Amino acid sequence: MYDCIIVGGGIAGITAAIYLKNANKKVLLIEKGTMGGILNNISKIKNYPGFTEITGPDLALNLYDQVKNNSIEYILDTVIGIESGTSNKVKLKNKELECKYLILATGKEARKLGLPNEDKLLGKGVSYCALCDGHFFKDKDVCVLGAGDSAVVEALYLSNICHHVTVLSKYPKFKCQEGVLNELLKKDNVTILYNSLTSSLNEENGKLVSINYNQNGEEKNIKTSAVFVYIGSTPNILSGIDLELDGKYLKVDNQMQTSLDSIYAVGDIISKDLYQLVGAANDGMIAATSIIKRLNKE
Amino acid sequence: MYDCIIVGGGIAGITAAIYLKNANKKVLLIEKGTMGGILNNISKIKNYPGFTEITGPDLALNLYDQVKNNSIEYILDTVIGIESGTSNKVKLKNKELECKYLILATGKEARKLGLPNEDKLLGKGVSYCALCDGHFFKDKDVCVLGAGDSAVVEALYLSNICHHVTVLSKYPKFKCQEGVLNELLKKDNVTILYNSLTSSLNEENGKLVSINYNQNGEEKNIKTSAVFVYIGSTPNILSGIDLELDGKYLKVDNQMQTSLDSIYAVGDIISKDLYQLVGAANDGMIAATSIIKRLNKE
Repeated sequence: MYDCIIVGGGIAGITAAIYLKNANKKVLLIEKGTMGGILNNISKIKNYPGFTEITGPDLALNLYDQVKNNSIEYILDTVIGIESGTSNKVKLKNKELECKYLILATGKEARKLGLPNEDKLLGKGVSYCALCDGHFFKDKDVCVLGAGDSAVVEALYLSNICHHVTVLSKYPKFKCQEGVLNELLKKDNVTILYNSLTSSLNEENGKLVSINYNQNGEEKNIKTSAVFVYIGSTPNILSGIDLELDGKYLKVDNQMQTSLDSIYAVGDIISKDLYQLVGAANDGMIAATSIIKRLNKE
Repeated sequence: MYDCIIVGGGIAGITAAIYLKNANKKVLLIEKGTMGGILNNISKIKNYPGFTEITGPDLALNLYDQVKNNSIEYILDTVIGIESGTSNKVKLKNKELECKYLILATGKEARKLGLPNEDKLLGKGVSYCALCDGHFFKDKDVCVLGAGDSAVVEALYLSNICHHVTVLSKYPKFKCQEGVLNELLKKDNVTILYNSLTSSLNEENGKLVSINYNQNGEEKNIKTSAVFVYIGSTPNILSGIDLELDGKYLKVDNQMQTSLDSIYAVGDIISKDLYQLVGAANDGMIAATSIIKRLNKE
């Protein structure tokens, strides 16, 4: 019986594991892929305090080292189901584990365009995070692809950094809050293209240089240094437990507790305003500390 | 006129500066002492994600490098006053600066015992943070000095890591919430000494080995590997502005906004449950992002 099992070895899950281990609790970390999670997809990080610049994979490796050096027990395996009762049961393919408290830290994935070159150009003109990567395209022309709140908010953010921002909405309008759209429309370095669906990402020397898009049945081309893709994302919610959602994301309170008393959630699967590395780490710290307090009362 | 001036170059203030600079805002960071703030007093950090183990001064230096490498404008000087009107005015000894938004990140200082050896034994048996340093004394005998909530909560935390915890309250009782005290009283590896005031920190080979204390007029001695001092702390609140407090700390909302519209506060000067590095960094990120959004609406 573990005090706590953490599902997901990104920065949120690993931070929780470090705090629980430091408090002398019996903790297990389970990661289905590479330790560090989504970090492994980020080319450069310049907004994480402590490193002027670090690659995502390097930070992921640091975190993995931290897990090993703290003697935190971990398994690289896929959780195929969860059952919550008097204790929580975590099912792997070949075994079932039990814990008093469970922290879900399974992250989210950006929805991709599904175009050729997309994966190859990641970090070379294709980004899913303006706040992370926008400053790499300071004074350049960029495109934002999407029609929702994120696309509009991030286009506004980029308009203050980049020379020009073109926003391509595949619909005849935006599906977002009016306030933020009005602010975007006031910007004189922003162009909006409606009914415009990106059809190809064009590269030269391994970098994005332009995109083709289809507008009202006509094929067009626009030169751009980057596309910021905001066409939605999918939190990786595990099946088998019925937790309260806020949209597609898990709803938690200020202690990171879900609607089930012994299940906490942290990082990119929870509903919140900003999805940033320091925020995810903070989530992990809060959930772990809350669980430590409860375990100490037993 | 700066978009934002940040007073205090600890991890909270520096994180805010990084985000503001990445968003292309005119930002100034002011630090009165050494960049990194309180970090410079911490001997070892093992719970900050990204570093298995780092000294406080090394992390402070990393943060300072990050400031310089991001070309963030900074001044090493003491703020002697602040005035808030249509803009905010920050007064230094020889000049006055103006900004649209102000972030206060001036931190707090633990109240010290005021005993000889105290500064010298910092990190060698004297600590002001059980959550940071408790695990360095795993399976050892330690003392907690204090009579308030923090002393009791942290003694409970330490009782799950250390072999034995002696809590010295200088009063005939504790001045804390009953619930947490009851939990502490249940622990069989905790001894409580009332009416006990520590009178000396005794060292051998540069490490704390015992303390003397005065109990009801009688001088006594107890062997201990560490003392965790929780006799209060003092947030460094700047004079000249009338901001709403929660106890001795600044009250902020979930955007880190104080009771004045254009003034934000982050890190150890604000009222919150947990004072941790990742939490301070998270505060800085939230305040900066909130200010960036407001600046972009102008």
